[in-house]
Amino acid sequence: MQVNAIAAFSATEPLRRTTIERRDVGEHEVLIAIKYAGICHSDIHTVRGEWHPVRYPIVVGHEIAGVVEQVGPGVTKHQVGDRVGVGCFVDTCRECENCRNGLDQYCLGGMIGTYDATGKDGEPTAGGYSTHIVVDENYVLRIPESIPLEKAAPILCAGVTLYSPLKHWKAGPGKHIGIIGLGGLGHMGVQLAHHMGAEVSVLSQSLKKKEDGERLGADHYYSTGDETTFKDLRRTFDVIINTVSANLDLAQYFELLKTDGAFVEVGAPEHPMELPAFSLIPQRRSLSGSMIGSIAETQEVLDFCGEHGFGAEVEVIDADYVNEAYERVVNSDVRYRFVIDIASLA
Amino acid sequence: MQVNAIAAFSATEPLRRTTIERRDVGEHEVLIAIKYAGICHSDIHTVRGEWHPVRYPIVVGHEIAGVVEQVGPGVTKHQVGDRVGVGCFVDTCRECENCRNGLDQYCLGGMIGTYDATGKDGEPTAGGYSTHIVVDENYVLRIPESIPLEKAAPILCAGVTLYSPLKHWKAGPGKHIGIIGLGGLGHMGVQLAHHMGAEVSVLSQSLKKKEDGERLGADHYYSTGDETTFKDLRRTFDVIINTVSANLDLAQYFELLKTDGAFVEVGAPEHPMELPAFSLIPQRRSLSGSMIGSIAETQEVLDFCGEHGFGAEVEVIDADYVNEAYERVVNSDVRYRFVIDIASLA
Repeated sequence: MQVNAIAAFSATEPLRRTTIERRDVGEHEVLIAIKYAGICHSDIHTVRGEWHPVRYPIVVGHEIAGVVEQVGPGVTKHQVGDRVGVGCFVDTCRECENCRNGLDQYCLGGMIGTYDATGKDGEPTAGGYSTHIVVDENYVLRIPESIPLEKAAPILCAGVTLYSPLKHWKAGPGKHIGIIGLGGLGHMGVQLAHHMGAEVSVLSQSLKKKEDGERLGADHYYSTGDETTFKDLRRTFDVIINTVSANLDLAQYFELLKTDGAFVEVGAPEHPMELPAFSLIPQRRSLSGSMIGSIAETQEVLDFCGEHGFGAEVEVIDADYVNEAYERVVNSDVRYRFVIDIASLA
Repeated sequence: MQVNAIAAFSATEPLRRTTIERRDVGEHEVLIAIKYAGICHSDIHTVRGEWHPVRYPIVVGHEIAGVVEQVGPGVTKHQVGDRVGVGCFVDTCRECENCRNGLDQYCLGGMIGTYDATGKDGEPTAGGYSTHIVVDENYVLRIPESIPLEKAAPILCAGVTLYSPLKHWKAGPGKHIGIIGLGGLGHMGVQLAHHMGAEVSVLSQSLKKKEDGERLGADHYYSTGDETTFKDLRRTFDVIINTVSANLDLAQYFELLKTDGAFVEVGAPEHPMELPAFSLIPQRRSLSGSMIGSIAETQEVLDFCGEHGFGAEVEVIDADYVNEAYERVVNSDVRYRFVIDIASLA
């Protein structure tokens, strides 16, 4: 079927409307009528070829929330009318050690991205900036009734990207978590860590978003532009999650970690990170990274958000606003996630 | 009491014989007649002022093995005649969270180094290149009968420096451990990891020491000068411990780690380490560091070595050879640890 979409036709042109082909629903597949698609900074890096060369035209979007419109005859997990979501990947090898151990985001066979990848049918995958998508039922998540679809969409990437490391590094009561940056990722991290029972601090360049941060669940909010911050917070955090893809002075941040503290990168800075060995050795601290989350964790974080009654804070936009939205994302001018109303693409 | 010692009088002069004052044995203290003192690369960095300025004259040495000669009236842990050792620190605050949790090597109050520190008596501490030392009984370790004292001395630093991270990162059956460098630290790491039941690979610049490595327990021995090594070993290791204080191409080594693999620095390279975020994020790998080990772990590693019947491989030297030994250590020309026979100082 031909469906409406917004695509990038080169690294430099504005995105524009087009139509793309979606395959017929297979035995174990689900056709989803997309209602909302979040705009992730990765979408922008990808369409602009900032990470690697891509094939144009390309349809991005991996924060997808919608409703099941059709199911293949072998589908058991979803029914027509179900509220569902799709995140950053639509298939994996399903056979490697990581797939078998519930770490499918680290699939050794190579996960198949929701866009900018080649599907098992040999065709380029195309993402959520479109009216419909066909996805294997195992990579389709249930969205709890208590979360409006527009607030659920960003959970599929931003949400699970924070949930997975918070869970892996054991955020919870008695733990103090630092979140660097209160943007799309950070504002999910604050809410998640808070509802997990941890003490949460935001480390932000300024105090501009302090009220928001506290409303979202931050116990403390610090400006990293204030010299006293780094003095006052020595050995404060069990875990710091860096949601800002800028090259920070890591040595300075590492002093804020307790013994055995972990500094976790979820955004990838452009240049190699630099760190003196003396930031690691004397207190057994570690620098680590985490990439989105597994399918199981994606379901978990949706259920967790549903249970605690929160989602992303979003600004819903029409499809034709996407190019302006991109500029605003690049300038960190959004509280806290743009979500495209796919009805505007109809 | 006045005792014989070898001291450095400046950063540039050869070490030479001298005498130093040792305090009277306190209520809970032990006087040890030192029999052997290992030469650690840290000794050299310290006397040459390569890490920070030091007070001269300075007596270094923190791999100390000897026999108890006198005990204070309150001592319960050691008796005259006991074979004992002293490692890198001779006291800690004993009150901080880390001291209370058996992580006294990471004492937040500041551990008191065996040398290059100020003792609780207000005097500079002086290390093992001397005939005697007075140490609080809680920082004195028992050396099992089955380990000759000269082979035990290096366990007090080199041994525990590898034991602690191997234990922390769970070396054992089913785990594959990579050890970078077969020197004083590395040759202890190979033996320890092997006896812990792990599969062990040495990653060395050349195959010069391959036979030694295999004899010490390495299952595999690879030259990092061989281009195929990095191809063949992709995603092989659960843990890589870097015993070489050189700035390596970390991105290349990180590809050798499995998902959740840890790269652990125990030697401190001079320059900041550089690492692209993409070495960490896509497989949740981590870069970490580890510093010596706790007093409890130091006893554990001595007991472990005693049980399995091994110690360090040493070249026993006279005190007057120490300056030549330093040159040879700097040139990696020792298999695998120089140990000063303190009888030559009498």
